[in-house]
Amino acid sequence: MSVLIIEAVDFFYLSMPRVTSAADGSQDALVVRVRGGDYEGWGECEAAPLPSIAAFVCPISHGACRPVSDAVLGARIESPNDIRAIAAKVAYDSMDLLQAAHTWSGIEMALWDLLGQARGVPVWQLLNWEKAYAKTPYASVLFGSSPDVTLSRAKEIRSNGFRAAKFGWAPFGQSVEADADQVAAAREGLGPDGILLIDAGQIFGEDVEAAAARLPAMEAANVMLFEEPFHGHAYRAYQSLSGQCVTVKTAGGEAAHNRHMAEHLIDFGGVGFIQIDCGRIGGIGPAVDVARYAAERDVVYINHTFTSNLALSASIQPYAGLQNHKICEYPTGLSALARELTITQIAPNANGEIELPDAPGLGIELNLEALETYRVDVDIRINGERVFQSPRI
Amino acid sequence: MSVLIIEAVDFFYLSMPRVTSAADGSQDALVVRVRGGDYEGWGECEAAPLPSIAAFVCPISHGACRPVSDAVLGARIESPNDIRAIAAKVAYDSMDLLQAAHTWSGIEMALWDLLGQARGVPVWQLLNWEKAYAKTPYASVLFGSSPDVTLSRAKEIRSNGFRAAKFGWAPFGQSVEADADQVAAAREGLGPDGILLIDAGQIFGEDVEAAAARLPAMEAANVMLFEEPFHGHAYRAYQSLSGQCVTVKTAGGEAAHNRHMAEHLIDFGGVGFIQIDCGRIGGIGPAVDVARYAAERDVVYINHTFTSNLALSASIQPYAGLQNHKICEYPTGLSALARELTITQIAPNANGEIELPDAPGLGIELNLEALETYRVDVDIRINGERVFQSPRI
Repeated sequence: MSVLIIEAVDFFYLSMPRVTSAADGSQDALVVRVRGGDYEGWGECEAAPLPSIAAFVCPISHGACRPVSDAVLGARIESPNDIRAIAAKVAYDSMDLLQAAHTWSGIEMALWDLLGQARGVPVWQLLNWEKAYAKTPYASVLFGSSPDVTLSRAKEIRSNGFRAAKFGWAPFGQSVEADADQVAAAREGLGPDGILLIDAGQIFGEDVEAAAARLPAMEAANVMLFEEPFHGHAYRAYQSLSGQCVTVKTAGGEAAHNRHMAEHLIDFGGVGFIQIDCGRIGGIGPAVDVARYAAERDVVYINHTFTSNLALSASIQPYAGLQNHKICEYPTGLSALARELTITQIAPNANGEIELPDAPGLGIELNLEALETYRVDVDIRINGERVFQSPRI
Repeated sequence: MSVLIIEAVDFFYLSMPRVTSAADGSQDALVVRVRGGDYEGWGECEAAPLPSIAAFVCPISHGACRPVSDAVLGARIESPNDIRAIAAKVAYDSMDLLQAAHTWSGIEMALWDLLGQARGVPVWQLLNWEKAYAKTPYASVLFGSSPDVTLSRAKEIRSNGFRAAKFGWAPFGQSVEADADQVAAAREGLGPDGILLIDAGQIFGEDVEAAAARLPAMEAANVMLFEEPFHGHAYRAYQSLSGQCVTVKTAGGEAAHNRHMAEHLIDFGGVGFIQIDCGRIGGIGPAVDVARYAAERDVVYINHTFTSNLALSASIQPYAGLQNHKICEYPTGLSALARELTITQIAPNANGEIELPDAPGLGIELNLEALETYRVDVDIRINGERVFQSPRI
C-alpha cells in the first residue's frame, strides 16, 4: 500500500438530550473521524468531549505543551510503527497538556481503523495476533437501588443468555451489611455457576480497611474480581488489599492514561486483573503492550468499555489473540445514542460468546444518521477567530 | 470569621503576542480569580489554558465526569478542611475528566489566598508551619545553544548574585559528549562553589542506559541533582538510574497531578529530590502533604515553578516551614507577561535568599493592567448558548 497522509481529523460530540449523574458513560460520546487518501477511520474517546476537543485545537503554550493536532495533522501512516511514532510525539510534545492522552486515544483508534481499511485486514492482524479468540462476555450493569432490584437484574441477565455479570457503583459502599446483601442478591440471581464481578467505583478512596471489610461477603459469594476499590493511583492501597484476598482478586486500570500506570498497578498494586480502556490509555498500541506485559506475569487482561460497539471492538483487539484471557466486558443497558451509533452490532453468538467482526479495521459500520440526531454544536473562538466548529457529516 | 461562599470563579487566559516552541512555560498563563464575601483570591494553573477552561465549563458527561465548576461554585469555605473537602469532591466527581486536576490547581491556590485574606494571615500559617524559612534560590534557565552560551549564561547568573543554577532542556540529550561539554561549561561559569542542577526535560523517555551515560560528567562536575531524565510515570527507570548514582541524586515530580504520583516517585522511583508544581498537583493542599511525606523519608522537597511570582509564592508555601529543605526554584528570564503580572516582586534579599511575602494569603498584589494587556479572548458556545466568555476586570 502507499503512504497515507492524515488530511483531516473531525470530532463529533454527541449527547443524549438529558445527561444525568448516573454512572452511565454512554450518555454522551466523542467520536473521531480520520481521513487519509481514499480511506477513513473511526475512533471514540472515552472522555469529556469539550476539554478533549480543546486539547486538539488549543494554541501552543510552549514546546512541551502543544495541541495534539500538531503531531497528527499531515503525519504519514504506512505501518503500525508510524502510529507509535505519532504517539511518542504526542506524549513528548504535549507532556504538559493533561487532557492530551484522552484526545489522542480516539484518534489512535481511528488510525488503526484507517490502516486496517487500507490494508484490507482487521486490526488484530495488524497487531500480529494469529487468531482472534471468542470471549465470554459479562453483562456490565449498575447495582440496583435495593438488593431486590439487583436480584431481578441478575436473573434477567442470566435469562438473556449471559453467564457472567458485573455489578457496580452506588449504592455499593454504603455499609458492610448493605453491600453484603447486594452481593448475595447478585449471586442468587446469577445462580451458583454464574461468574460474578463487583465494581466498587473507587468508593473507598485509599481506605484499605473499609474495602477489606467487604471481602468476606465476596469470598462467600465466590466473586471473581473486586474492581476499583480505590483511587486509580493508590497502588499501596491496592497492594495491601491484594494481600488480604483469598480467592477474590483485585482488578483495576481503567483510569490508566498511559502504559506505565497499568504496569505499575500490576507491579506495585498486585492486581490479578488489569482492565484497560482504549479510549483513555492512548488507544490500541499501549493497550496491546499492557496485554503482553500482563500475560507474561499471569495477570489477566480485560477490556474496559462502557460506550458504543465501536469502542467495544477497539477494546477487544489488543487481547484478541490471548486465548486464556477469556472474560470480556460487554456493556448492556447502553443509551439510545450508543446503541444507534453503529449499524454493525456485536452480539453474543449461539454459544453466548463475543467474536470480533471479520471486516477490515475495527469492522464497525457507523450509522451516520446518529451523528446528526445526537449532535452537539460546539463553537470555539479565540480572539474572534473560530478554532473549532462541529463538523457536518 | 464567617463562612465564605464561593460566588464566582473567573479565568483569565493571557498570552505573549507570539508563543514559540521554546521550553519556556511563561509564554502564556491561566490566572484564576475566586470571589467569596468581601474577599478575592488569586491563583494560577500551570496548564494549557483552553482545555483547562473547558474542564470548568463543560457539560456533565456522567456521574464521574462532571465539570469542575460543579464542586466549586456555591461551596462553603470556613477552614482549610473545607478546601480539602472540595478537592476530594473534584477528585471523585471528575475522576474521568483528565484535565480537571490542572483546572482545580489554580482554583485551589486561589482559595488558600482567599482564606488567608479573610483571616489576615499568610498561607503558610494556615498550613500550620511555625515559621517561613528563607530559601536559597536557584536561577532556572535553559541551556545555551552551545557550551559557550551556557558558560556566559552561568557567569551572568553568578554575577547577578545567585549561587545556584539549574540548566535544562534541549540541546541536552543530543550526545554524551555534547552533554558533557554543556555540563562542564555550566560548572565553569558557576565556579567551584556554585550549586549546579541539571534538568533533562524527560528526553531519555525510559532509556536508562542513555541517561546513565551522562552520569560520569555530572559526577565530575559535582551536579547536585539530575532532574526528569524520564517520562514522569517511568518509576522503574527512575529506580534503576537512582541505583547507579554516586553523589548525584535523581529528581522529578513536576508532572504529578495528584499526591499519589509524587509519593510513588519517592517509593518506587527512589528519587532524592521531589519537585512539585502547585499549579498541576491540585494546588497547595496535596503539595504540603507531599512535603511532609518527603521530609519523613529524607527526600528533599523543592518547589517547581516556571511562571509568575504568584505561582512562585504558592509553590513555596507548602514547604516554607521545612528548614533543611533549602533550595528553591526561582525562574529568571521570564516573559514580559509573567514579569508584569504581579506588582509584588519576590526578589533575593541581601543574603541572596528568597523570603515569602508577609502579607495575608499568598501576599501577591496583581497588576490588573497586565490582565488586559495580555488578554486572550475566548468564546465557547454549545448549541448556540455561550458557556464561557473571557471576563473583563
